[in-house]
Amino acid sequence: MRRPVLTVRGEQQCFGGTIGFYAHTSAEIGAEMRFSVYRPPQAQAGPLPVLYYLAGLTCNEETFMIKAGALRLAAELGLILVAPDTSPRGLNIPGEDDDWDFGTGAGFYLDALAEPWARNYRMYSYVVNELPSVVAANFPVKADRAGIFGHSMGGHGALTIALKNPDRYRSVSAFAPISNPVAVPWGEKAFGNYLGPDRALWAVWDASLLMRGRPFPGDMLVDQGLADQFLEKQLHPEALEAAAQASGQSLTLRRHAGYDHSYWFIQSFMTDHMRWHAERLSEARI
Amino acid sequence: MRRPVLTVRGEQQCFGGTIGFYAHTSAEIGAEMRFSVYRPPQAQAGPLPVLYYLAGLTCNEETFMIKAGALRLAAELGLILVAPDTSPRGLNIPGEDDDWDFGTGAGFYLDALAEPWARNYRMYSYVVNELPSVVAANFPVKADRAGIFGHSMGGHGALTIALKNPDRYRSVSAFAPISNPVAVPWGEKAFGNYLGPDRALWAVWDASLLMRGRPFPGDMLVDQGLADQFLEKQLHPEALEAAAQASGQSLTLRRHAGYDHSYWFIQSFMTDHMRWHAERLSEARI
Repeated sequence: MRRPVLTVRGEQQCFGGTIGFYAHTSAEIGAEMRFSVYRPPQAQAGPLPVLYYLAGLTCNEETFMIKAGALRLAAELGLILVAPDTSPRGLNIPGEDDDWDFGTGAGFYLDALAEPWARNYRMYSYVVNELPSVVAANFPVKADRAGIFGHSMGGHGALTIALKNPDRYRSVSAFAPISNPVAVPWGEKAFGNYLGPDRALWAVWDASLLMRGRPFPGDMLVDQGLADQFLEKQLHPEALEAAAQASGQSLTLRRHAGYDHSYWFIQSFMTDHMRWHAERLSEARI
Repeated sequence: MRRPVLTVRGEQQCFGGTIGFYAHTSAEIGAEMRFSVYRPPQAQAGPLPVLYYLAGLTCNEETFMIKAGALRLAAELGLILVAPDTSPRGLNIPGEDDDWDFGTGAGFYLDALAEPWARNYRMYSYVVNELPSVVAANFPVKADRAGIFGHSMGGHGALTIALKNPDRYRSVSAFAPISNPVAVPWGEKAFGNYLGPDRALWAVWDASLLMRGRPFPGDMLVDQGLADQFLEKQLHPEALEAAAQASGQSLTLRRHAGYDHSYWFIQSFMTDHMRWHAERLSEARI
């Protein structure tokens, strides 16, 4: 297999390891895609578990790395971090830049079915299939020890991706995920446009519905701020809780008084999430 | 005295404390100025030491708070953090937005003497006099326990401000400071425009020259990356080292292979700086 060609946009030292920003031509997306990777100092000695982070609306491949306070912990715990961009960019698809919650910066980690999005808006297949192979070909990862987490739209992405691919991810967690997108405005807008009006096609992209069908074989950690400005209208963690109860999913859902939807919230609980993943990614699998 | 009126632009919870963004009408600057404050959870129980951070070129009052990884440590150590903007903004002074290294975002923490800057570009007096009184009137700080640090242009600011006001600051440190601005292009441009062509007027704003005249009564910590793209042309830490040797200043200057000028570098050594200040700000003064 030919090694995928990566463009190095920048690499800097951080906590004794390397934070790098990369671009490559994505076959799934049909365009250039960008992502970031943090290699902790332990990566010089051999392959390490890898933890993917999916960011939320309007974010890009840099947001998590610079705002979440995770690199220090990755250097302590020996985890490689990977953060993709949140959508294709610059395709000049009509409407892609009209709204902040749809199109550019809002790929929703699904594979679009409806035009004009179906060819390029394939963030699900990109994150699950193509990105891991690009990462494995270029960075010292233990590909069989992968975890995934994310925030808001990216929390929805992490939960659905883990639920749909329990063989590929050993650990999953989320910050303030869109827990039941078929039932909220963000999800209805994105799914209606990317997937089309037939709601029967939406269910396989909804974390709460997926969980009711087949729970993730491991436990799940979800943190939610109670001062989150999107909590009532868009996030619906109670739907996830009900699905977990119905299906027997082991779910730790923590509600935190006073915290909002921002990276001030995320960084406050990053230590717990990083340790959660590190524990599960370092265990020998039974 | 009338309590200065603060506009709260936003407050969020972070690590059990509060990160806030504020604006007020500054008498020194003659315009609205913005700054940020992090109050750790311990601030609910009583006044705490306060640590000022001065950011570098192009930055604003948010940069340090979101990129440096300091809030976690402030919450652990019980320090209030204050970060002002790096210049006046939006004054429509001819030339203020022509260059990224002069004018807006580049106030250089001095009091301008030359026109058209002299009325408004008074970041030195703002940081040393006005901002601390606004902070003391609105936040639970122990005003006699203040430290100061900064990065690049803000490292220059922190060093010069501490050297000129040893009675007001108990601790000082810097990341990659412009150590000898009178001898480098950034400093020559800023001082030439803000202070005028008479170089005799520049010396009182140069950390290495100030240190030769009167060392800071405490020790100093300076970190410098050796892969810093500005090291040779703009930063000159060796001038600071020579000044320390000449004047007997106690200086810990650490050079770090592989690190550049960015917040990836700064966050890597933030723990050391925060502990440095916390130790010196918690000591009873002799």
